[in-house]
Amino acid sequence: MHFAKKFKQTLRETNSHLVVGLDTDVSKIPVFMKSSVNPIAEFNNLVIEATKEFACGYKLNIAFYERAIDSGFAAIRSSLAAIPENLITIADAKRGDIENTTELYAQAFLDELGFDSITVQPYMGQDSARPFLRRKNKFVWILALTSNYGANDFQFLQVGKQPLWEIVVEKAISWNEHKTGFVFGASHTKEISKMTKNLPEVPLLIPGIGAQKGSLEKTINALNHNLFVINQSRSIIYAAPKAENAEEFKAIVGEAAMKARDEINGFLMIKK
Amino acid sequence: MHFAKKFKQTLRETNSHLVVGLDTDVSKIPVFMKSSVNPIAEFNNLVIEATKEFACGYKLNIAFYERAIDSGFAAIRSSLAAIPENLITIADAKRGDIENTTELYAQAFLDELGFDSITVQPYMGQDSARPFLRRKNKFVWILALTSNYGANDFQFLQVGKQPLWEIVVEKAISWNEHKTGFVFGASHTKEISKMTKNLPEVPLLIPGIGAQKGSLEKTINALNHNLFVINQSRSIIYAAPKAENAEEFKAIVGEAAMKARDEINGFLMIKK
Repeated sequence: MHFAKKFKQTLRETNSHLVVGLDTDVSKIPVFMKSSVNPIAEFNNLVIEATKEFACGYKLNIAFYERAIDSGFAAIRSSLAAIPENLITIADAKRGDIENTTELYAQAFLDELGFDSITVQPYMGQDSARPFLRRKNKFVWILALTSNYGANDFQFLQVGKQPLWEIVVEKAISWNEHKTGFVFGASHTKEISKMTKNLPEVPLLIPGIGAQKGSLEKTINALNHNLFVINQSRSIIYAAPKAENAEEFKAIVGEAAMKARDEINGFLMIKK
Repeated sequence: MHFAKKFKQTLRETNSHLVVGLDTDVSKIPVFMKSSVNPIAEFNNLVIEATKEFACGYKLNIAFYERAIDSGFAAIRSSLAAIPENLITIADAKRGDIENTTELYAQAFLDELGFDSITVQPYMGQDSARPFLRRKNKFVWILALTSNYGANDFQFLQVGKQPLWEIVVEKAISWNEHKTGFVFGASHTKEISKMTKNLPEVPLLIPGIGAQKGSLEKTINALNHNLFVINQSRSIIYAAPKAENAEEFKAIVGEAAMKARDEINGFLMIKK
């Protein structure tokens, strides 16, 4: 199924805009899991079990899995196998290279591992997106306006009358408007408002809530369409650092996810 | 030793500006190696043995190793172990993320695997470089003007009087001028000339010769300093597709590397 169609269907079916970020740092895993053969895989499996009824999808930042070197890919595989088929999966890889090389990233993340979608760096231009876009049911999230302080270095540079991020959006849309969404940090409310007004059919992936301190209410109010997902990681997956067994862990982490989902929906409902 | 110092010393000691790109595609490995436990590792070891007296360093494009999924990191480890200590190593990862996440990439590539240096995407700003720059003897190669056709999408955008790539260079230099070099595709001779004139102490990593059709002579003539390395991959590592044993393979690949090194040095000597 075309990702855009799956995306809308999943948002509807799950009644959730919450993407749980599986940014799993082995040093933060509760003690009771540490003796596992693959602690990251074990941790993720429990998080997925606890949160799958509250999330519309999962985002794995690949850096955490590369840091695990030899056990990283095994953990990715097992996590993806545990995620229900109808939920969306995002490889937060922020990849980008010349076309022949990007093709290999597409083979690894989209074909072999089977992620639905992937985050992409725009700097090298269309080569960095095209191989991903060639896959029938896959999707790219191009970095537009990111949540970190370094966003101020280049993303707001004025090119004629427009800031760079806007030119990135317009150009990327021209590569394939049906298979492209964008990453906007939650605190960029003015730009999110403008973006979602001008491009009502283009999905947004929004990080930067929670530990990164964006205001959820202001972000929700800025959105002019509902094709968005909000990523939260640390406030959910690390909600139970002292849990002593799987049941306790899942109860606490599940509740954190439920609250996060409800908080987003609550602000959506009271929007004027 | 500070990378900048090692860099100059290695260029001098090896009398070579050739970096061999270990962009190893398992489908292009000669038949006699395919039954090896880790064909990519085997292939790389033979290439390194054959070329180490002609190269100043090696660049591994990480996409090729991610494509190998489970055996990729083992191949990286074994390749790095085979590369002589005095030669420079480059993780062509083109990574970049928020600071805490980039720190994990630094731990993986620079600390754990032990690469000297890494290529970096500039779009997210200084967060994408700082963790790498914090490591004492390490170095970053920031993408400035790349060799692919997509370079035309954003890198030449006019920001006031300057193109975007120039702003990227100026800004990145301000983060740490002693530990930062830049990637310039070989065909961008006008910009290479300007860059190396204005910043005579800043190293360049130059891909895009060989299969990507840059002109080596024009590129060499454009350079106004000698702190550069030229990456060549396919024309060297795939020079012996029909080799039937290790000795034959190494003889052919070694000769291709020697010729590449000599060609660069030849053009350097006859420069006016």
